[in-house]
Amino acid sequence: LGHAQLCDAIAQIVGVANVLSDPQDTERYVVDARRRYFGAALCIARPADTRQVSNVVEVCAKAGVAIVPQGGNTGMCGGATPDPDIPSVVLSLERMNRIRDLDLANGSLTVDAGCRLADVQKAADDVGRLFPLSLGSEGACQIGGNIATNAGGTAVLRYGPMRDLVLGLEAVLPDGRIWNGLRGLRKDNTGYDLKHLMIGSEGTLGVITGAVLKLFARPVTSVTALVAVGSIHGALDLLGEMRRSFGERITTFEVMSKNEYELVLDQNQTLRNPLATHANWFVFLEITDSLAAFDIRTALVEQLANADSSIGVLDAVIAETLSQAEQIWKIRHGVTEANLKAGAAVSHDTSVPVSRIADFVIASEKEIAGRFPDAGVYFVGHAGDGNIHVIAIFPRESYPDEARFSQVAGQVNAIVDEITASLGGSISAEHGIGRSNRVRLAERKDPVELEFMRRIKAMFDPQHLMNPGKVL
Amino acid sequence: LGHAQLCDAIAQIVGVANVLSDPQDTERYVVDARRRYFGAALCIARPADTRQVSNVVEVCAKAGVAIVPQGGNTGMCGGATPDPDIPSVVLSLERMNRIRDLDLANGSLTVDAGCRLADVQKAADDVGRLFPLSLGSEGACQIGGNIATNAGGTAVLRYGPMRDLVLGLEAVLPDGRIWNGLRGLRKDNTGYDLKHLMIGSEGTLGVITGAVLKLFARPVTSVTALVAVGSIHGALDLLGEMRRSFGERITTFEVMSKNEYELVLDQNQTLRNPLATHANWFVFLEITDSLAAFDIRTALVEQLANADSSIGVLDAVIAETLSQAEQIWKIRHGVTEANLKAGAAVSHDTSVPVSRIADFVIASEKEIAGRFPDAGVYFVGHAGDGNIHVIAIFPRESYPDEARFSQVAGQVNAIVDEITASLGGSISAEHGIGRSNRVRLAERKDPVELEFMRRIKAMFDPQHLMNPGKVL
Repeated sequence: LGHAQLCDAIAQIVGVANVLSDPQDTERYVVDARRRYFGAALCIARPADTRQVSNVVEVCAKAGVAIVPQGGNTGMCGGATPDPDIPSVVLSLERMNRIRDLDLANGSLTVDAGCRLADVQKAADDVGRLFPLSLGSEGACQIGGNIATNAGGTAVLRYGPMRDLVLGLEAVLPDGRIWNGLRGLRKDNTGYDLKHLMIGSEGTLGVITGAVLKLFARPVTSVTALVAVGSIHGALDLLGEMRRSFGERITTFEVMSKNEYELVLDQNQTLRNPLATHANWFVFLEITDSLAAFDIRTALVEQLANADSSIGVLDAVIAETLSQAEQIWKIRHGVTEANLKAGAAVSHDTSVPVSRIADFVIASEKEIAGRFPDAGVYFVGHAGDGNIHVIAIFPRESYPDEARFSQVAGQVNAIVDEITASLGGSISAEHGIGRSNRVRLAERKDPVELEFMRRIKAMFDPQHLMNPGKVL
Repeated sequence: LGHAQLCDAIAQIVGVANVLSDPQDTERYVVDARRRYFGAALCIARPADTRQVSNVVEVCAKAGVAIVPQGGNTGMCGGATPDPDIPSVVLSLERMNRIRDLDLANGSLTVDAGCRLADVQKAADDVGRLFPLSLGSEGACQIGGNIATNAGGTAVLRYGPMRDLVLGLEAVLPDGRIWNGLRGLRKDNTGYDLKHLMIGSEGTLGVITGAVLKLFARPVTSVTALVAVGSIHGALDLLGEMRRSFGERITTFEVMSKNEYELVLDQNQTLRNPLATHANWFVFLEITDSLAAFDIRTALVEQLANADSSIGVLDAVIAETLSQAEQIWKIRHGVTEANLKAGAAVSHDTSVPVSRIADFVIASEKEIAGRFPDAGVYFVGHAGDGNIHVIAIFPRESYPDEARFSQVAGQVNAIVDEITASLGGSISAEHGIGRSNRVRLAERKDPVELEFMRRIKAMFDPQHLMNPGKVL
């Protein structure tokens, strides 16, 4: 089939109205939501159900044309945006947005992959349950994309990443066959786990079309606190103490360096500092419980009072009202905007063992600042998960030339990747590989693991048509 | 290499004292702990470290001789016992029993695969933490075997199966190469997840030699209750109510049918019934918390009082003392012994969605009793996980002939497997496949999934030397 004939054949499967090829219509599918990655597509196919996905994949496979599965196109690494140099069909799941089944007694929800995350959260909330995955892009991202990228977000500490929230999967394989793994089982020891191979494979092994998701008890009480500590070590000691007593109730434990904290407050004049102290590090934490009868607020006050001397808690504010809690979280959520205003940023999505966070902070601050005296080195992260973002911010006026800045970014990456490797860390804790981290992955991954990744890819997708140019 | 020469070559790697071939010495490696599976081995190799495992595997691979990785040899399905008809070297991990590293701040423990589960539990307990996997065989089974079989046990409801407790793995691949995936990271999105492929593969893809395990907050308060309910539906309604309020604190939620309950009490005269009521179903539950300040006992009393009318709680006893709690759990743990005394049993390790447990119970009771009027049909299970064991017990005198009983067992299996499939369940919730469930797996598994399992096996182990005759 020629490319035009292929698009016609796809139109016969999904209907003419659901094949887009006019540049005005295709723009939002071939450029990612943050407008960082640009691509091109022969057409955009928008199937209505799994059978149509299967038929579209089959006809593309026969024509030898690449397929780019796409959810909300909100990923950070360009994993859902087609490569401009490879003739591709973008397969958008956006019309597949049905809640297929709710099983309250089993604590599970079966959904189409194209359901938006916010709609899945709402479906759980409507029946008094919690679907805990929560991200900045939840109003736009789709659950299939969340699964394909093993999304993280704000509640990983308590509930785990997306990988831990999936009971079963349905996927269309690169040859068009449907794999029905839509099981709602908590225990199943019947052979190799294909589900976990598909999760986090970023659309390179097949198209996720449906999933059975876990639901949880909905928290009915929560307490938010902002704690000032003298050092990153103090923050980590506090985390250890808190985990030992509050256990799974600690839903969020975020850390921020002093300069990042001040930057956020400086750049957004509507925010105010709820603390009197200007410490070196700040901890944002939330504790939630499904039993209203238990007074987690008093327990937290006691814990912080006890931690005062041993850990070096300098100051703390515990939100008295929901609105005070919101004010605290606004500081945490002001980071992206503040950094964007502050200059040209090179940011990293590093994870290390929690015990190595301090080493990572100290080494990366020293080496980046040593090599680039004009850079500010900022830190913010999900400390409970060992996921610490280091952000080097340069004055925009010093790098008017994009190619020159790109070179600097590469040097910063090399510094951070080297430190990460020395601490047994990962260069991509939650964002994935996509287009942007392929080279870094190839350089940093264990060679045996990389070899098996390539062999698995070749086994599932011998024609290399499924999301080519991504991950590997 | 001839077989004798191969054993000599292995002796050069692990030392003469660590190659066993005298039948007196090899007996406990070629027959499983329950004496259900019998095999033979060219020799037993007992390497001291990962490098020696690698060298032994390499020399066997070159000689074209099969390798059977073995932990405690306590599995239920013969997965660690060599096939009598395939010349094999049993590779026992028992000498690899070091705790390699404890990282308290990261909440992780790095261990050799040959550590006994009880020793891992103790290493965690010694530093005030919990390693939650707990099984009947914990004094003998090894952590490598627990990982290879994705072991379940009594705390899956709260902490998940073994799969959820592993942060990183080290394994020797079928060609002898070492894969070092010993990462202690909570988040890592850098490509396909080989770890999850290895977990639950029952030694057919490689030899697990080390692991990084998750540690948890140690519960400091617990409450045990035994609850009598009118029906299995009542038990499941209670589970739903409890989960919604107590959330993760419900560590164990087990159900038992009336006839099983009475059988246990009849067969063991040292036990006494702590309840006045003789109900149709009994629930054994435990709630634990890491915060001593919270009164979970009172919260449970209130919950059960409220559940009384809506759910049909007929009677309940909440242990006042540790010794009372022990008495309650003794009834639950008396099942295996009581069933053994009662007759010739055919038992199943079924899981279904929690919402289908009642359907499973009703259908399997009806169909087994209908087909075999002389059989008693008993139920016990981890209801919170959807894992319900049905046990058909026959009078021994009716089946003096083992071949005839084996035929009956096959018929009972077929009945149960058919019901399981119709309810979207699994024929092996926690025990695995091993030798004994291969045929049932091949009959019941989705064909696409089975095909990919076979292709993955062939990719990792093209000579089919790694634990042959197991799983596939």
